[in-house]
Amino acid sequence: MASWARAVRGLLLDVSGVLYDSGGDGGVPIAGSVEAVRRIKASGLKLRFCTNETQATREKFVKKLQGMGFDISVAEVTAPAPAACRILKERSLRPHLLVHNDLVPEFDEIDKANPNCVVIGDAAENFTYANLNEAFRVLIGLEKPVLISLGRGRYYKETDGLKLDVGAYMKALEYACDVQAEVVGKPAKMFFESALAEMGVPPEQ
Amino acid sequence: MASWARAVRGLLLDVSGVLYDSGGDGGVPIAGSVEAVRRIKASGLKLRFCTNETQATREKFVKKLQGMGFDISVAEVTAPAPAACRILKERSLRPHLLVHNDLVPEFDEIDKANPNCVVIGDAAENFTYANLNEAFRVLIGLEKPVLISLGRGRYYKETDGLKLDVGAYMKALEYACDVQAEVVGKPAKMFFESALAEMGVPPEQ
Repeated sequence: MASWARAVRGLLLDVSGVLYDSGGDGGVPIAGSVEAVRRIKASGLKLRFCTNETQATREKFVKKLQGMGFDISVAEVTAPAPAACRILKERSLRPHLLVHNDLVPEFDEIDKANPNCVVIGDAAENFTYANLNEAFRVLIGLEKPVLISLGRGRYYKETDGLKLDVGAYMKALEYACDVQAEVVGKPAKMFFESALAEMGVPPEQ
Repeated sequence: MASWARAVRGLLLDVSGVLYDSGGDGGVPIAGSVEAVRRIKASGLKLRFCTNETQATREKFVKKLQGMGFDISVAEVTAPAPAACRILKERSLRPHLLVHNDLVPEFDEIDKANPNCVVIGDAAENFTYANLNEAFRVLIGLEKPVLISLGRGRYYKETDGLKLDVGAYMKALEYACDVQAEVVGKPAKMFFESALAEMGVPPEQ
């Protein structure tokens, strides 16, 4: 074993496209990945799952993966929405949400009255002309507009074709309001750091 | 009269916000502007109207202004859509249109089969999730994506509130496809140059 490998005490695993391929029917596990997760856990290495998934709560996401045979629990998943909630609480930010309906429960404990920021995720069908104008009006009405984006993906593929991802709509709002979004999720450094902190393993290990 | 004023042989006039204020009921002329247009014409100066209006054909737009009392004809108006049509013809481009329904007739004579570019205008209610994904798929499917944008405004005000303008959606497609849009309309230099050419007056006059 190489010396760097001996120093490794924990692993961060991507999920979509690494452990399973998504699709209209929920997706299928990639060959060998269920067994790989099992072996990593048996080896004593610490493990966290790091995903930019923002179309569902972690509960729903984990249930789907468990159904495919993966040994995974909600407590082992680092996702943008909970990370955003920590930021909102720390900075007393009350979000106007432009996210997928299925993600809303992740923000249940967050005060959303009289919003002083906008949180945008992959809202999919919720990316309507009316909803985009509404989020824009909240932002442009703030003395210091704060836009928090759950990821910055350009597009992704679904069974019925390519779809614009959250990053495209983030750019639209950035341009209209002349602001720069704060990106929560991969590839933001802070997102990986918080996953490591949750695992209790420093970057060099 | 100052020497620069003696050299002036023609004028380009903005329309919305200069000659009239837009609004839900079609808008109202700005005090003195109807008379100003009349006097410019009587003075013998050449005159063209230069607008970024892309929510209606020039015919409809001019009819509205005539109804307010302005001495204006379709032939005197420089607008993004006809300028875009010239570019499309010159470069044998067949557009997929993401524009306002009322603007579509401006492209009647343009071949739109098997599109090899996307033309985006202020599509308003046509900026749906489905339509944006469709325009994106056309663009990303091209070997060399060509995106032509009728203006690059950030937002504008209507009687029922602020609305995102074409520039925001242009930025979304630019980011998703990693392309730079070609902007037709103010403030593009080429747009002013073509208005001057139509008027037959060089820039220095």
